[in-house]
Amino acid sequence: MTAPSLDVVAIGNAIVDVIAQADDQFLHDQGLAKGAMQLLFTPEEAEGLYAKMAPGIEASGGSAANTIAGIAALGGKTGFIGQVANDQLGNVFRHDIAALGVAFTTEPREGNPPTARCLILVTPDGQRTMNTFLGASQFLPATALDRDLIESAAILYLEGYLWDPAEPRAAMREAIAIARAAGRKVAFTLSDGFCVDRHRDSFLDLIRGGEIDILFANETEIKSLHETDDFEAAVAATALHVPVTVVTRSENGAIAMVGDQIYSVNAEPIAQLVDTTGAGDLFAAGFLAGQVQGRSVEQSLAMGAICAAEVISHYGARPEADIAALVAAKLGS
Amino acid sequence: MTAPSLDVVAIGNAIVDVIAQADDQFLHDQGLAKGAMQLLFTPEEAEGLYAKMAPGIEASGGSAANTIAGIAALGGKTGFIGQVANDQLGNVFRHDIAALGVAFTTEPREGNPPTARCLILVTPDGQRTMNTFLGASQFLPATALDRDLIESAAILYLEGYLWDPAEPRAAMREAIAIARAAGRKVAFTLSDGFCVDRHRDSFLDLIRGGEIDILFANETEIKSLHETDDFEAAVAATALHVPVTVVTRSENGAIAMVGDQIYSVNAEPIAQLVDTTGAGDLFAAGFLAGQVQGRSVEQSLAMGAICAAEVISHYGARPEADIAALVAAKLGS
Repeated sequence: MTAPSLDVVAIGNAIVDVIAQADDQFLHDQGLAKGAMQLLFTPEEAEGLYAKMAPGIEASGGSAANTIAGIAALGGKTGFIGQVANDQLGNVFRHDIAALGVAFTTEPREGNPPTARCLILVTPDGQRTMNTFLGASQFLPATALDRDLIESAAILYLEGYLWDPAEPRAAMREAIAIARAAGRKVAFTLSDGFCVDRHRDSFLDLIRGGEIDILFANETEIKSLHETDDFEAAVAATALHVPVTVVTRSENGAIAMVGDQIYSVNAEPIAQLVDTTGAGDLFAAGFLAGQVQGRSVEQSLAMGAICAAEVISHYGARPEADIAALVAAKLGS
Repeated sequence: MTAPSLDVVAIGNAIVDVIAQADDQFLHDQGLAKGAMQLLFTPEEAEGLYAKMAPGIEASGGSAANTIAGIAALGGKTGFIGQVANDQLGNVFRHDIAALGVAFTTEPREGNPPTARCLILVTPDGQRTMNTFLGASQFLPATALDRDLIESAAILYLEGYLWDPAEPRAAMREAIAIARAAGRKVAFTLSDGFCVDRHRDSFLDLIRGGEIDILFANETEIKSLHETDDFEAAVAATALHVPVTVVTRSENGAIAMVGDQIYSVNAEPIAQLVDTTGAGDLFAAGFLAGQVQGRSVEQSLAMGAICAAEVISHYGARPEADIAALVAAKLGS
């Protein structure tokens, strides 16, 4: 077993976000559950919602891709595996992740469907409601896995969202096997409460099977996983099988349970909440970067809080400020 | 001559902006003139610069299109004429302008080149340096002019940038003739100092020929137009032929010369300068909206200052805040 040359490699949806403002009435009229992610299954559904939306901005997104972008901005050595189409938005996704120095070797897919996009509606309270057209992203084949890349990274990071489509789900299972065989750690995010609903048994199998070393969730997701309203019980039930369980709690900060020990961090104060898109993704980025830098669990949580605070202070799910400098100013380098 | 049913119709480049952070060293290394606009003539040039740029965000742009977006957000009835390709970025441009209620009837163009894009580098001082690949935009044919749309608007607004390519230049000349025959006013922006250099004689012919009723410029442009360092002389020389001459002066506010009378406005205070992209475009939006609302020259200048201040407080060249509310709070509705 050789020492890893990369810190984190992620597999996730390769998505371009379209971010627009909307009010609660609009969400209500369109039958959208505020704060959640729903899938749009046809180009017509995606076009129909887009046509009703206000003017937007486009920015590279995708949950695990946002996390990788954050880790790269924090100085981590990273790679990403995800499927774009050979089109303009696919080029945008590729440019943005490559510009961060992330190894991104997945070949673009020819023809339809186009590159995935996520129509994100941001309400005046800063909450985001996401509507994802998976497009090319759902066709990531197991054959596209870069085995060397996965074996070379200390941590393999997977997003629960990508459990929805069959082909990438199979690819992720294979990636887990590759990583474990190489002696690497596997990190996983539950992604979304409805996503947990759709895949509860699979996620519990992964967890109870000991396949996950680091689990990320928010309060809704961890409670949904165990179908309980008892937050502490849900965390404890997870921590029985997962060495490190990290749960974000919005303005109440976050906790990590490691063995029978619980650590917590307050949310980082912000001047103004603009758009919560990417909050969980960037928390995971900060925490994982802290771990690969050999920091303590407390310091890793603090890094997560700093990165999440930055990304919710502006539109878009990737950092605009120099988060490495923010971390160094607060925690030292 | 019937009363106009629209306030302003503009003809301009139909561009999607790609906005990324850069430092002065990057501009220097790429040989770019800070604060200016340069044209990229081939897809290879555009790809080459894009590949070197940091991760970006994409947002609809185009100078006159930004102005029209601002006027629409201020409650004006507007139309836009400009050429996109039938591709993803063309769809983004169309969606964003249509979502504002702007009449946009220009059919997308099939095949290559793709929709225009402007690679915008924003330095830490908030200055933007623009690199425009005109793409489909340069192929706006005179046959695409919507004569009814032009005749229906009180003001036809044209951008100097679109004087560069031959086909839209001819289309704009024809549009001026249509507007004047219908008894409408013609407004024109000089766009950029280098653009004035390229087309000084044409621009002076338009002005001295009495074709322009409202002219927009900044200090650099108006001085370049008359090849003088004497700002007041340059304004006066223009005002001999143009009923309303509006000149923006960055942090020093703006002036308007009407006949032999000079009006001025201070720059609106801002919390933080983030990105000057769209400052002039939104100043023109506020001023023109004030004029079509029947406000005084002073109040129209104040509206320009309010709109410009909003757009330089965030990334992107179109308003994010409710500029109509900002104007109403400051000036009354």
